[in-house]
Amino acid sequence: MTDVIDREGTATEPVAAPAGNARRVYVQGSRPDLLVPFREVAQAPTPGAAGDTANPPLRLYDTSGPHGDPAVTVDPKAGLPALRRPWILERGDVETVSGARGDALRARAGEAVTQLHYARRGMVTAEMEFIAIREGVAPELVRDEVARGRAIIPANINHPEAEPMIIGTKFLVKVNANIGNSAVLSSIEAEVEKMRWATRWGSDTIMDLSTGKDIHATREWIMRNSPVPVGTVPIYQALEKVGGNADQLSWEIYRDTIIEQAEQGVDYFTIHAGVLLRYVPLTAKRVTGIVSRGGSIMAAWCLAHHQENFLYTHFEDLCEILRAYDVSFSLGDGLRPGSIADANDEAQFGELRTLGELTQIAWKHDVQVMIEGPGHVPMHKIKENVDLQMEVCHEAPFYTLGPLTTDIAPGYDHITSAIGAAMIGWYGTAMLCYVTPKEHLGLPDRQDVKDGVIAYKIAAHAADLAKGHPGAQHWDDALSQARFDFRWEDQFNLSLDPETARSMHDESLPAAGAKVAHFCSMCGPKFCSMRITQDIRDYARDHGVGEDQAVRLGMEEKSIEFRELGGRINVPQ
Amino acid sequence: MTDVIDREGTATEPVAAPAGNARRVYVQGSRPDLLVPFREVAQAPTPGAAGDTANPPLRLYDTSGPHGDPAVTVDPKAGLPALRRPWILERGDVETVSGARGDALRARAGEAVTQLHYARRGMVTAEMEFIAIREGVAPELVRDEVARGRAIIPANINHPEAEPMIIGTKFLVKVNANIGNSAVLSSIEAEVEKMRWATRWGSDTIMDLSTGKDIHATREWIMRNSPVPVGTVPIYQALEKVGGNADQLSWEIYRDTIIEQAEQGVDYFTIHAGVLLRYVPLTAKRVTGIVSRGGSIMAAWCLAHHQENFLYTHFEDLCEILRAYDVSFSLGDGLRPGSIADANDEAQFGELRTLGELTQIAWKHDVQVMIEGPGHVPMHKIKENVDLQMEVCHEAPFYTLGPLTTDIAPGYDHITSAIGAAMIGWYGTAMLCYVTPKEHLGLPDRQDVKDGVIAYKIAAHAADLAKGHPGAQHWDDALSQARFDFRWEDQFNLSLDPETARSMHDESLPAAGAKVAHFCSMCGPKFCSMRITQDIRDYARDHGVGEDQAVRLGMEEKSIEFRELGGRINVPQ
Repeated sequence: MTDVIDREGTATEPVAAPAGNARRVYVQGSRPDLLVPFREVAQAPTPGAAGDTANPPLRLYDTSGPHGDPAVTVDPKAGLPALRRPWILERGDVETVSGARGDALRARAGEAVTQLHYARRGMVTAEMEFIAIREGVAPELVRDEVARGRAIIPANINHPEAEPMIIGTKFLVKVNANIGNSAVLSSIEAEVEKMRWATRWGSDTIMDLSTGKDIHATREWIMRNSPVPVGTVPIYQALEKVGGNADQLSWEIYRDTIIEQAEQGVDYFTIHAGVLLRYVPLTAKRVTGIVSRGGSIMAAWCLAHHQENFLYTHFEDLCEILRAYDVSFSLGDGLRPGSIADANDEAQFGELRTLGELTQIAWKHDVQVMIEGPGHVPMHKIKENVDLQMEVCHEAPFYTLGPLTTDIAPGYDHITSAIGAAMIGWYGTAMLCYVTPKEHLGLPDRQDVKDGVIAYKIAAHAADLAKGHPGAQHWDDALSQARFDFRWEDQFNLSLDPETARSMHDESLPAAGAKVAHFCSMCGPKFCSMRITQDIRDYARDHGVGEDQAVRLGMEEKSIEFRELGGRINVPQ
Repeated sequence: MTDVIDREGTATEPVAAPAGNARRVYVQGSRPDLLVPFREVAQAPTPGAAGDTANPPLRLYDTSGPHGDPAVTVDPKAGLPALRRPWILERGDVETVSGARGDALRARAGEAVTQLHYARRGMVTAEMEFIAIREGVAPELVRDEVARGRAIIPANINHPEAEPMIIGTKFLVKVNANIGNSAVLSSIEAEVEKMRWATRWGSDTIMDLSTGKDIHATREWIMRNSPVPVGTVPIYQALEKVGGNADQLSWEIYRDTIIEQAEQGVDYFTIHAGVLLRYVPLTAKRVTGIVSRGGSIMAAWCLAHHQENFLYTHFEDLCEILRAYDVSFSLGDGLRPGSIADANDEAQFGELRTLGELTQIAWKHDVQVMIEGPGHVPMHKIKENVDLQMEVCHEAPFYTLGPLTTDIAPGYDHITSAIGAAMIGWYGTAMLCYVTPKEHLGLPDRQDVKDGVIAYKIAAHAADLAKGHPGAQHWDDALSQARFDFRWEDQFNLSLDPETARSMHDESLPAAGAKVAHFCSMCGPKFCSMRITQDIRDYARDHGVGEDQAVRLGMEEKSIEFRELGGRINVPQ
């Protein structure tokens, strides 16, 4: 598991992954078909009085899959290679069935094909080994966390194209991006492109929230081309089947829908099984009532029929189906707060307790579970959410939407929620569902999707640092060292968004020479604290003047160049 | 203090303040010339089965000064009215001196003219009353917090144009924006416009970090036109006077510089008096050394002269000068960490302890003090900063730059730092210095300034909510109620940035009819949880069908309209 296979040189023309001086590398595991992708960023050496000091290349987690490998050309009509198919078949517990999409895999009668089932039996699957390499941890940790239900590996046996990843509090915090078709933009290529775009910027899973007429076909193309797990909210498709009338929903229609989606390869389902009849009146006095679409549909059904939520009464039936494909539950928080005023109320926490009961039922059936969380929560009420979730849901992974820490900034809810997301990630949340700037206002476009993913990658990484994840800080340290060394190119290449960093720098100092200058456009040479610090270091070390003089002469040249560019301006003191 | 004087109707052509359905109103205090400005947003009623329910107008804190009053035309060459001049003269403790800028005010010999001095003597000044109305608190709280040093009112007697504001942990969290001239964009009008722009979006103070040749004249124009307190870093101008050679700095040059700036009206000075000779070697092993410009200049001076920092050795002399004009100290953190790796280290905390000693010296002289803070700090190390600052600096207000919670996202440091800023504000920091997206990369342009201020207004308000400030949540509640009621216009008008909220909505549903639709472009009528919730409420209340039918018929019409617009798409589940 140490060999690096370099399929390609420097990625000058990025297909999907951020470029810069990065290349795609693979680390091979215990078998030749177990190849874990990384983005490797080369660095220039640090110059010094005693000669150059080499800086090792930095290897970063990469979610872009084959789309991010310049050596691979993906034909969307053919889809991605079925990476996991041999691993699934070798386990000898599946059979082929003829379903809505043609042949699909399913567990043989009486078998469970879930990663939880294997983990409990002591197996380190190929998926677990892949994840261990990807996360830089021991395979046994992966197995153990999955076995105790504290982490999940969303990995439907009918989505063999996905590269294994893990969602759990002991691992890197993950990010989900929502996509979905619309009547305006419904071509298959456009949907595949949205998914590629989200994973290019680091989305660890995507949710297809399509509601249109081509819902099945759109999902099929997304599944076949997605290198990350895909989640859905099956009630949306079920509602389409009954013409949008919630009253006419039934267990049978819902059951057929989830079997159809499980056969297509959906890796996790948001299921609002905790919206119980008795919780609905608790929302009547809220400022914003029920803001979850799935939650409101189920609440409407419960009231119309005077019956308990059929997703709750049929929960064991759901478990039977999900375990036959290894679809993970994402137990939906249909009663999440939609405003600061409604945070942490009785309706929200009542439902959370019910989700805890359902978690234990799912585990009894060897089905993997994560729990969805809020929503809108002010900072001082965030920790209570995680603490209570961990207690009543027995440490099943938490998967939260934000939370937004204020309601006053529509147009900027990627920021209001990145604050809450970073904090809730630090407190133990395993995956963060992104919020785009368009939240509450309209349809996210390409730029909104990118802005949402970037804000959430920041939140997730800030949380990894605060949690003390051993693989987190080396990235910050490398970037800061590059900054201090005035290695501008390395600083750009190591950035979360190299293109934006480079273009912002170029707005002020576009000349190529500026990228090797030992100061930047903000302070100019006279006020450059980093340059002065280097002088201080030199002074402190009592070096001879030879080297210093050379540096100063170089600085004076740069200084003239800088003045010609018209530099110097406002920066933090 | 309850009369509202409405100088003007609806502000259809905003001069500086965000428009929407807002108008400028003033609340008068105990004297006719004490008029506290607010932005008042009118709201439509909430429709209901039993008739409309009125929604009161919401009054918001307004930093834009006369520039935001449509009834006022400001001539930059004439400057703003000298609002506070009568209050200052009535106290009878100042004299006129002839300084570099012409006549200026100064305390008469032996007098202290600081708000701290007055507060300690039990006086509730007009400035304090203005603040009490502005913050919605008792005047005695303002006086008491200033008297104990836990809050400051930056209010140089030579800046009578500024509207009084307070910086302290018991009050609304404040935001500072940095501006400053450059060779590229150096017209007076351009500088005044930058200041107006920052205060339009809510900046509570501005810092003029100019370093160019026209430093004095530029500052003069900013002072005369700024409705908010202005801070500077005087070492920048002092360094200009010695041709950029830190070695040639001296106490005398620095002293003359701060007198010049105090006579112009600068309200607070960042002074790096805590960068002691013995701390400098502690920075040698850091990843990013010294990143403060002022800090590095003083460190270079100390090393070059083998002497202690002259700002430290002359600190009592500084106090004498500052108390004669009521300039507040902003004790600079010259050794703040510039990277995650350097957070909370010995150099940083050593300097902080020295700032605590200096705080007590300043207080002995009746001079107001705040303390500057980091920088780059991972989330789990933020609270320690506030706790230690409060302990060793005796609860003097904390004024922090961010902090940035990760180093990996140049181009997005308004977000990496808004996370830290919100948290540190919650923990007790009184003012947040903004960071723009261009931080580390280049010169902020107009859009960067706005993005930085908005991100920090979000952080400050999220902190106000988390602190439980009594004046905070009514804003969130009003916006959320408008959202739930589908009062789109009110939702836009109540937003932190009405223009952006409106334009994002219009991208999806531009028709005027969409702004009264009882659903939005994200889910469409079928999936609209808020609409379903309203149905649930109606059901639960067992209303007759008359009203409901009317609503449903209305919805069907809207539904058709919506389909024609091509609605429905991806939103969070």
